[in-house]
Order: sequence, then C-alpha cells, then structure tokens
Amino acid sequence: MDALAALRTLLAVRSYQAKPVPDAVVRRILEAGRLTGSGMNRQPWHFIVVRDGETLRSLGALASSGPYVAQAPLAIVVATDKSRFAVSDASRAIQSMMLAAWADGVGSNWVGFSGMDDVGALLKVPPSLDVVGIVPFGYPTKHIGRGQKWRKALREIAHRERYGQPFE
Amino acid sequence: MDALAALRTLLAVRSYQAKPVPDAVVRRILEAGRLTGSGMNRQPWHFIVVRDGETLRSLGALASSGPYVAQAPLAIVVATDKSRFAVSDASRAIQSMMLAAWADGVGSNWVGFSGMDDVGALLKVPPSLDVVGIVPFGYPTKHIGRGQKWRKALREIAHRERYGQPFE
Repeated sequence: MDALAALRTLLAVRSYQAKPVPDAVVRRILEAGRLTGSGMNRQPWHFIVVRDGETLRSLGALASSGPYVAQAPLAIVVATDKSRFAVSDASRAIQSMMLAAWADGVGSNWVGFSGMDDVGALLKVPPSLDVVGIVPFGYPTKHIGRGQKWRKALREIAHRERYGQPFE
Repeated sequence: MDALAALRTLLAVRSYQAKPVPDAVVRRILEAGRLTGSGMNRQPWHFIVVRDGETLRSLGALASSGPYVAQAPLAIVVATDKSRFAVSDASRAIQSMMLAAWADGVGSNWVGFSGMDDVGALLKVPPSLDVVGIVPFGYPTKHIGRGQKWRKALREIAHRERYGQPFE
C-alpha cells in the first residue's frame, strides 16, 4: 500500500476475524516498531508479542477500555523504560506498527492507559519499565470504509506563521 | 512510496536544501497529521506552519537541541491541549507527518523538548496549550542511505508471550 494511502485511511479496528496474523506480517509489524526513530536514538521500548488465547483473554479482562483484546488473534504489549522521551518514542513506534499492519490489511487499535500495571505483572514486565499500551491486531470483521473518519477541519487546527492565523 | 518502505527507511534529516517545500507537499503533511488517530478521538493538536525566514531563525535560536531549524525552509510547530493523552497523540501525529513528508522525498526531525515555552511565546500560542515540538522539513542536502540506521537487534526488544522470552 502507498504510504500516503495508509496514512489517510488508517482506522481504529476493534473487531477481528479469528484468522491468525501470519508470522511474516508479525515480523513486518515488529520491524516497523524496531526501526522507528526515538529521542537521542535511545529506543526505550520492548514489544511483547502475545498470541496465546488465555493470555489474550486475561489482557482483555484487565484493559477496561479495550475488552475486545480478548477476541484478537494477536496483541503486542509495549513497555518502555522511564526516561523523559519514552512516552513519545513508544507512541511513534505504535503508530509505525499500526501503519505497517494496515499496509498488510490488518487492523489494530491502541488500548491504554488504565490497567497497565496489572498487564505488566501478568507478562512479568520488570518494575523498572512502564507498560504504555496493548495493541491488538487482526483482520477486520467488517468492510472498513477508507478515509471515512471524523476529524476536525484543517482550518480549526492549522495555523500560518503564528497561532490564530488560519492556515487556509 | 510504499508504506513499508517509508517505515523502514525514514531517517532523521538535519540538513536541508534551501529549495522550498511545495504547497501541495505541505498540505499532504498537514493532512497526515490531521487524520491521525488519537485517544477518544480528541485530536488535541494544533499545527503552526512556519515558512518565514526570520521566524525560522528565531526558532533555531530557541531550540537548543535543533539549531538547524534556522536553515530549514519549513517547520511545523506542534502544540496540544494539556489532556492526559496529548503527548501520545501529538507523537503519533508527528510520526504521521514525518512519514508523509518522507514519501515525498522531504526529510525532517523532531526537535524538542527544551525551550518549547519560549517557542510558544514567539508564536502566540495560548498558555492553555503546550508546545511539544518543532518539526523542521526540507529536501535533504545529502544522499540519504536507505535503511542504514543503528537500531537494537530484534532479540533485544521483542519478547514472546511474556517479558524475557526472546521473540527469536
């Protein structure tokens, strides 16, 4: 998929087919995360690949904002060290992984921020790290509208030279 | 550019040709930011497009980690409200914008986090918002190696089912 098309059409997907995500796709998703830029190139992230059904159901039970994790065939839990840029860096890596998945037809969504300490305990994440999110992945159950998203108009959020001068 | 190729090859670019970034490219970059997903779809971001040479030089002087902003033909300053997910959301939008630019052959880098209050004052950003970064954009001065980046090996950061079991 073309990069701009992927950026324009990427949507949150919360309902997945049971069909597994192939190993080759999992690997492309991980590579996209691994190769992401980070503050001072610190790469403060860890990616925990979960495909075990029981673990996925436990994650869904712990994630109050994302019980649908329980039905996903795959989730990647993202943990970081506690450095200053870690949340930014992990967010960039998550965006990269969601885009890589989408380019392969696989939907995802970011599930956080509540319940993450319990997720860390479940997955034996050391207390020196923070769990910042669970990203469930799977083939969407529905035909996904391309680019039909609700977003603010450009004039509400884009400014020219200084705040308050609309870009258009 | 293919989405996976863009994700794999995106590199921080800190040295730019004087050549302006065309309006159509600026618009594609902004669209990529605007269409990014965010926590509860709050879209907490503002994008301030700076192309004025004097303002760019002032930004470069304020950004201790990115004096090269002064030489860029374009910078987008990103401000957010102070909500819980704002840093994550803005980070995802910045990643999207950097990828969109890269797909058009335009390099960029994230400059933050020091000096951002002064940047806000310069650009008349209201105190109810935080400036999270300056993203300078421009055509790279050098031939950029594709995919030649220093990153940790997958086995150092990817785990299988729980932390500490290497993915491969």
